[in-house]
Amino acid sequence: MNNRNAALVTPAEGSVLSPEVETFISEQVRLQVAAELKRLGLDLARPKRAALIASKGTLDMAYPPLILATAAAAMDMEAAIFFTFYGLDIVKKKKLSNLKVPPLANPAMPVPMPNIIGMLPGMTRMATWMMKDWMKKGGVPSIPDLLDFAKENGVRLIVCQMSMDVLGIKKEELIDGLEFSGAAAYLDYAADADITLFV
Amino acid sequence: MNNRNAALVTPAEGSVLSPEVETFISEQVRLQVAAELKRLGLDLARPKRAALIASKGTLDMAYPPLILATAAAAMDMEAAIFFTFYGLDIVKKKKLSNLKVPPLANPAMPVPMPNIIGMLPGMTRMATWMMKDWMKKGGVPSIPDLLDFAKENGVRLIVCQMSMDVLGIKKEELIDGLEFSGAAAYLDYAADADITLFV
Amino acid sequence: MNNRNAALVTPAEGSVLSPEVETFISEQVRLQVAAELKRLGLDLARPKRAALIASKGTLDMAYPPLILATAAAAMDMEAAIFFTFYGLDIVKKKKLSNLKVPPLANPAMPVPMPNIIGMLPGMTRMATWMMKDWMKKGGVPSIPDLLDFAKENGVRLIVCQMSMDVLGIKKEELIDGLEFSGAAAYLDYAADADITLFV
Repeated sequence: MNNRNAALVTPAEGSVLSPEVETFISEQVRLQVAAELKRLGLDLARPKRAALIASKGTLDMAYPPLILATAAAAMDMEAAIFFTFYGLDIVKKKKLSNLKVPPLANPAMPVPMPNIIGMLPGMTRMATWMMKDWMKKGGVPSIPDLLDFAKENGVRLIVCQMSMDVLGIKKEELIDGLEFSGAAAYLDYAADADITLFV
Repeated sequence: MNNRNAALVTPAEGSVLSPEVETFISEQVRLQVAAELKRLGLDLARPKRAALIASKGTLDMAYPPLILATAAAAMDMEAAIFFTFYGLDIVKKKKLSNLKVPPLANPAMPVPMPNIIGMLPGMTRMATWMMKDWMKKGGVPSIPDLLDFAKENGVRLIVCQMSMDVLGIKKEELIDGLEFSGAAAYLDYAADADITLFV
Repeated sequence: MNNRNAALVTPAEGSVLSPEVETFISEQVRLQVAAELKRLGLDLARPKRAALIASKGTLDMAYPPLILATAAAAMDMEAAIFFTFYGLDIVKKKKLSNLKVPPLANPAMPVPMPNIIGMLPGMTRMATWMMKDWMKKGGVPSIPDLLDFAKENGVRLIVCQMSMDVLGIKKEELIDGLEFSGAAAYLDYAADADITLFV
């Protein structure tokens, strides 16, 4: 008893506490810091998360969310794409293989074309064919392949229910494996995400 | 005094500290961990925050920032929209009810239209009328209503001062209830946000 | 020794711990919270970070990532711009001074123009000239100046290697001072960023 008391007081030069008390306090601090951080949502064992919005239905703007989300999944991040408005075309059965890129109002087109030519019938088809050809030669998977890869690798594909209502789109028109939700669900998911992008 | 000392030393098998001391230390640790996290800015009592940029002045791209910001506010998040360049049209008195959607260079338009037709006079008006009609039927509030709702629910509407200078826009041309600031203010607000999106 | 023991037990009315124990706990909490946060990647001494994507090659959409990144750097934030697809035009030697803005499919153009006029030859050149003139009068630096400022102030300019492959662009065609990398590098950087934007 006396020994212990002594230990409590001056275990070593420069310290006023016993090793037992120091150890106990240190352990308490460690546990409570971990508990408090977890309670605060700062659970850093959790994976990084990317919450992407796909709002465009052109071929060129369908790639970025799919490439980023599948790359994120390959890096063991959580990833979700929220398809809204024009972006719904990307998950429409009849559209996803036929997304187009208009050679219009875009002076940065790889093969630039005056707008007065770009607006002619057939030019959208030609620009689309060219882009698909470049993508293929560059080793970029097609949109259907990226969608399959996304689903197989746990990327959540969420469709904006409001957009479906507004555009009169039915579930049967869309591919399998989708979730249906609203802006609130996106915000809820994104609020804990590390990367949020509107494409 | 002796009692206390005894308690300090061997309260139970395997423990060198009394339950009282352990409890007290635990509580002290809990309080101090909370204080330290707060001091470090990890105050998790603070609400989630969405920092959105509205850079487009078309009807279709006016909806996303307003819908997301008002949904965020309804979920008790902090939200701000930073209106820049073309996006200033959304808060211009004479424009906000007359935003338009061009049926051009967008193969994902719900009623697709060849560009050679879409560029004809009257087609933008028709596409705009159609989109407003769909939105109404789908139960989506109008842009003026979304702006009112945003203001009433604490969404901060911040106008890019540099864009005003560049475009020669005067405050009188804009709706009431706006703040005026620059990119630095956006970055400062966004640096502590959980969701950042460029629309 | 007795003095110390006494201090350990009842240093003051209302406290059962000695000042020494309280001091030790405070110090332990401070050190361990800092250590734990660092281990969790929550290094609060680190600067804020902005991770921007530049995916458009028009003059109007070249400004936002450059203005935001340089403003961030001026605020001592870390900043990087990831140039992808059309966005590569912004760092192409032959293009960066000649980015254009098409007066088409954009009813929010400061000087609105029917699409049937906007698509005429010469109209893109005129709209581009007008925008450059406004920017100059508004005191906004040119794109080349913004790029120089970005490089001088530590903004990382990262080019999407996959886009180069797809578009057949060679390093010699691009300005100096760039890094070359892929979507994974962007995601890795962005996962620890505070602001992430897709322009």
